[in-house]
Amino acid sequence: MGKLFRFGVSLEKTLLDKFDKLIRSRNYTNRSEALRDLIRQELIKKEWREGKEIAGAITLIYDHHKRELVNKLTDIQHDFHDLIISTQHIHLDHDNCLEIIAVKGKSSEAQKLSDILKAIKGVKHTALSMSTTGKEV
Amino acid sequence: MGKLFRFGVSLEKTLLDKFDKLIRSRNYTNRSEALRDLIRQELIKKEWREGKEIAGAITLIYDHHKRELVNKLTDIQHDFHDLIISTQHIHLDHDNCLEIIAVKGKSSEAQKLSDILKAIKGVKHTALSMSTTGKEV
Amino acid sequence: MGKLFRFGVSLEKTLLDKFDKLIRSRNYTNRSEALRDLIRQELIKKEWREGKEIAGAITLIYDHHKRELVNKLTDIQHDFHDLIISTQHIHLDHDNCLEIIAVKGKSSEAQKLSDILKAIKGVKHTALSMSTTGKEV
Amino acid sequence: MGKLFRFGVSLEKTLLDKFDKLIRSRNYTNRSEALRDLIRQELIKKEWREGKEIAGAITLIYDHHKRELVNKLTDIQHDFHDLIISTQHIHLDHDNCLEIIAVKGKSSEAQKLSDILKAIKGVKHTALSMSTTGKEV
Repeated sequence: MGKLFRFGVSLEKTLLDKFDKLIRSRNYTNRSEALRDLIRQELIKKEWREGKEIAGAITLIYDHHKRELVNKLTDIQHDFHDLIISTQHIHLDHDNCLEIIAVKGKSSEAQKLSDILKAIKGVKHTALSMSTTGKEV
Repeated sequence: MGKLFRFGVSLEKTLLDKFDKLIRSRNYTNRSEALRDLIRQELIKKEWREGKEIAGAITLIYDHHKRELVNKLTDIQHDFHDLIISTQHIHLDHDNCLEIIAVKGKSSEAQKLSDILKAIKGVKHTALSMSTTGKEV
Repeated sequence: MGKLFRFGVSLEKTLLDKFDKLIRSRNYTNRSEALRDLIRQELIKKEWREGKEIAGAITLIYDHHKRELVNKLTDIQHDFHDLIISTQHIHLDHDNCLEIIAVKGKSSEAQKLSDILKAIKGVKHTALSMSTTGKEV
Repeated sequence: MGKLFRFGVSLEKTLLDKFDKLIRSRNYTNRSEALRDLIRQELIKKEWREGKEIAGAITLIYDHHKRELVNKLTDIQHDFHDLIISTQHIHLDHDNCLEIIAVKGKSSEAQKLSDILKAIKGVKHTALSMSTTGKEV
């Protein structure tokens, strides 16, 4: 966390009222905290678009009964061991697994791994959660 | 436009530097103007989610050679004449039309019209542009 | 429109039932038409990401009372006259205008114009509607 | 996994060529597998919108040095113990933590937890990954 810096912002009264209502409904403690979040959101979108170092999570849903699927998933994850930090596995029910892969590295690599996993037979869904290493925001 | 109201915001120095770089790259004249846009974006997302009165545009791409397509599109648009303000038509090439329908009304109605148009044979793509009446922001 | 080509698809019964329910609720005439739309959606996302020639619409909301705003908007649009096909203007109320700019060209140029317009003082919101020239889909 | 059901689909030749190119670039083994994924994506979006039972992940980035932050995060997570399955924690660097919370329950509850966590001082970013329990797809 860096040193705090203070500056003035001017808003139309009607816009400010709307904003205050929004941040109350989301339980923000003050306007600065809410504005910080809006700014960070925008910066993180930019980090991903520009191929910066990012952190994130790939969420997989699959049926572990599919032949050879678990082996395939493990092999592929090892090919990306530089990108992958760790993996969390949840047995959703008798058939379905939820696997969450924490990643840190280039946004293009994370996207590539997500695409490869998605195309595997038996993988029902992948979602790529785009977050940040926190260093720059 | 309402009266301007001024208040202080505090940001970590590193976050502020990043933000200043972002707003320079997007040609904003000052921080207030950039923050206003971030706030409005968030409020407009909320207007749509909560079913408020919105304004927007539905963009259609279609092949006008498809039998009965133009008649069907016209009929449906008349069913939504309360929602539709006006329509702009562009002949993209020999086959393809770009039609942009300006709408004002409930967000659910705009979504419904967009879904109906999308399902019509010959309509290749619809995109729903979610904007605002400007009254509340 | 090209010649039709037919091929077989196999789906799990449960997935097919869900899909049939979805397409009925959206009024599709048959499965092929719904699948075509899903495929086109995916291809058009790719066109935009890869910087292909696209068509689309930029939706602006602004307060025309802001000093010099209308002149500025006109000047900028002339700088992008190769990209812009035509413009549709709607007087939403006494203060607010809805302007919809139909564009055709490179996706990066459309994004750039949208960003420039958004940063102008008095422009309350811009939305970029990502569609297609229809040639490739 | 249910029984497989086979049906015919017809596509314009140009659209099919584009689609085949897309699925090759994403390493799908065949058209059916790619179409299944497009259908599932659409169904899962619907599950979230309609408030069905979903599974997913909430990704948090925060600075653990912020006073009381870790306690607050733990307290809140306990309030949502019915929704939360498990949590994975990664020390990104000296300051920043990546925490990934696996959730299963109503989409509105997952959204609510994500909003509450986001508003806490010291939490730099939250991302909500919208996936599925796999039961219906």
